[in-house]
Amino acid sequence: MTPDFKSLASLYRSELLDRVIPFWLNKSQDTEFGGYFTCLDRDGSVYDTDKFIWLQGREVWMFAKLYNTVEPRQEWLDASIQGAEFLRKFGHDGNLNWYFALDREGHPLVEPYNIFSYTFAVIAFGQLSIALATAAKSNPSLTCGGCPAAELSAEYASIAKRTFDIVLSKTDNPKGRWSKAAPGARALKTFDLPMILCNVALEIEPLLEPAFLQKAIDDCLHEVLDVFYRPELGLIVEALGKDGNLVDCFDGRKLNPGHAIEAMWFVMDLGKRLGRPELIRQAVEICLQEVEYGWDKEFEGIFYFMDRLGHPRHELEWDQKLWWVHLETLISLIKGYQLTGDERCLNWFQRVHDYTWNHFRDADFPEWYGYLNRQGEVLLPLKGGKWKGCFHVPRGLMNVWKILEDLAATQKA
Amino acid sequence: MTPDFKSLASLYRSELLDRVIPFWLNKSQDTEFGGYFTCLDRDGSVYDTDKFIWLQGREVWMFAKLYNTVEPRQEWLDASIQGAEFLRKFGHDGNLNWYFALDREGHPLVEPYNIFSYTFAVIAFGQLSIALATAAKSNPSLTCGGCPAAELSAEYASIAKRTFDIVLSKTDNPKGRWSKAAPGARALKTFDLPMILCNVALEIEPLLEPAFLQKAIDDCLHEVLDVFYRPELGLIVEALGKDGNLVDCFDGRKLNPGHAIEAMWFVMDLGKRLGRPELIRQAVEICLQEVEYGWDKEFEGIFYFMDRLGHPRHELEWDQKLWWVHLETLISLIKGYQLTGDERCLNWFQRVHDYTWNHFRDADFPEWYGYLNRQGEVLLPLKGGKWKGCFHVPRGLMNVWKILEDLAATQKA
Repeated sequence: MTPDFKSLASLYRSELLDRVIPFWLNKSQDTEFGGYFTCLDRDGSVYDTDKFIWLQGREVWMFAKLYNTVEPRQEWLDASIQGAEFLRKFGHDGNLNWYFALDREGHPLVEPYNIFSYTFAVIAFGQLSIALATAAKSNPSLTCGGCPAAELSAEYASIAKRTFDIVLSKTDNPKGRWSKAAPGARALKTFDLPMILCNVALEIEPLLEPAFLQKAIDDCLHEVLDVFYRPELGLIVEALGKDGNLVDCFDGRKLNPGHAIEAMWFVMDLGKRLGRPELIRQAVEICLQEVEYGWDKEFEGIFYFMDRLGHPRHELEWDQKLWWVHLETLISLIKGYQLTGDERCLNWFQRVHDYTWNHFRDADFPEWYGYLNRQGEVLLPLKGGKWKGCFHVPRGLMNVWKILEDLAATQKA
Repeated sequence: MTPDFKSLASLYRSELLDRVIPFWLNKSQDTEFGGYFTCLDRDGSVYDTDKFIWLQGREVWMFAKLYNTVEPRQEWLDASIQGAEFLRKFGHDGNLNWYFALDREGHPLVEPYNIFSYTFAVIAFGQLSIALATAAKSNPSLTCGGCPAAELSAEYASIAKRTFDIVLSKTDNPKGRWSKAAPGARALKTFDLPMILCNVALEIEPLLEPAFLQKAIDDCLHEVLDVFYRPELGLIVEALGKDGNLVDCFDGRKLNPGHAIEAMWFVMDLGKRLGRPELIRQAVEICLQEVEYGWDKEFEGIFYFMDRLGHPRHELEWDQKLWWVHLETLISLIKGYQLTGDERCLNWFQRVHDYTWNHFRDADFPEWYGYLNRQGEVLLPLKGGKWKGCFHVPRGLMNVWKILEDLAATQKA
């Protein structure tokens, strides 16, 4: 039975705007040293003050995205700028090499070994630059901390573009001097980078030259759909030999269904943007295959890691149910339904929706749990940590709400 | 009620010699390329052929230790030598820098970033050198692969000693160029290295100059008992500031009860060796405090990781029950009972024995499971993997058996 999209949209909207976003606005901002606390306990109390660049960048992005997508609320712009200023001052080594972690005051703790610290800096400064350009357009005399908004927008755009160039220059050897691979060792390439780049390119589209953008998009789509998607498995693998062949080793057998499913809504967005419905259809099929494969038939929910040959994994968290996997799945399924009308997407959406809201949502305190055991019980009571911040829950709620709103607009009463 | 030590000793002996050791002898040896497979499924079938130096070294050590401790069986000596030869040829870079992983044929996969690849090479070559010296003494014309046993013994002793020197030269910065700590960042030192060195020093005692040994032992004991043991907590912490102070960050809050408990039987051995009963008493008290603290009051078993302030951990496997934790606990408790007669040790031993045998032992196939979820259910069916090899189960069974045998000898019928 088709659900009532209007009331469902309102559920997502209210969870986002009345519970989740106020949680991060009120609990995560470090008004003393700048940036955000992300290690927040069940009730939002801070249990660790270290600042992880992935999560700093993602929260800057989230507030800017809300400003650009939902409505231009000043408090969202302010929250985004305060995080961006912390990142601009302390997040990198002076040459836009983005550290992995800082202490509360901004002293570097962990070297810039991780390429995703860079990619999240790109989307943070890119999205905020767009927000500031909009703000400056509607109010040309607007200043932020004494600086004209248009100038700040240009500076942030420059940081995003230059960081994106560094990312692209590192795609062949993202770990650089921190790689532990022995010289001449079995060389693998991983799915995570082309998958993220699909999304990054669209996030900063207004800042890129069209030809450059086109090339970046074509490369990503090729890697995701022609290389890492394996038709003989019907699945996306996390790592392949440099020659593109399957490799029978721990890394080469690894599957991460949530990762693959998340990538499919990036591909659907690209398919829409490029006017290529065949891309959308392919992404929907892969998404459904991944959900079927990753679904835990005994306890429900989607597994974190699997092995394509069914061997034991060394990731001891393999059978846990993670928040981001389920939120990304909701986006892909409802987007797939919106773009193709495929009823299988809607059926799976309802099933994953029920699981997600019943298990991850905390009825007593805002924001959602992140980590459940296989049985669906809360493994850690945290609302934020080293890897969970102001990102997947609000991004998921926002995307699903907006799509449901569109669906409601065309649904017969 | 005091158990029947004789029948209990026989249970451990039979499990070791009739089930566990034959499993590794028959299933793990790579007769084609040398070394050992350690990724073995429930029934012993090989599911991955990569060779991890930790586990190669530990298996060499285990067979040599059995030869030295239990009886001089030729098949154990042969199994140890075949692994040692593989390690000698392929395990290091030519300068005794020990890789972390090799492929099946011995090509390096992962660089020598991990100090414990070195420490396990030390105990492997040290223990086997002792075995070969014994063998050569009883049969001076003995050769192994064409080489006189006494010569091979001397060569292995030299590898062990030179590697131990490298380990000691790295104690201030064990990760070397693979460290991701930003220069000037909050510096921590970790418990794992001094803890292992307590054991390594005794393992290769016959190869070391007495003054050198004494200094190494004194340093380790100081670090373990005066620095990492915190009387205000009654617990050992996994990491401290370089100045020896507690640090409130993820690493600085981390507790690993199994690690601390394992270290306590190393300390008891040193106390026995040095004739210092006060060391033994202290180790027994700490051991009991750790067992009480780490015990899961709801589902039994000992937690893997805990947080000294009770905050959420980022290790998602924190609540799982691991084989090595429980086997090391059995050793510490029965050794503590043997050396002090403390009934609390015996009571806890019986409780942990029941949990361990009921949950980790596989009644249908030899060797034990390694990974259980919090509830005590099997999480992974493997008998060996990237981190579990021929080590903690046989070492634990051997140590407990031998102690129970001594206890039985003095127990009134």
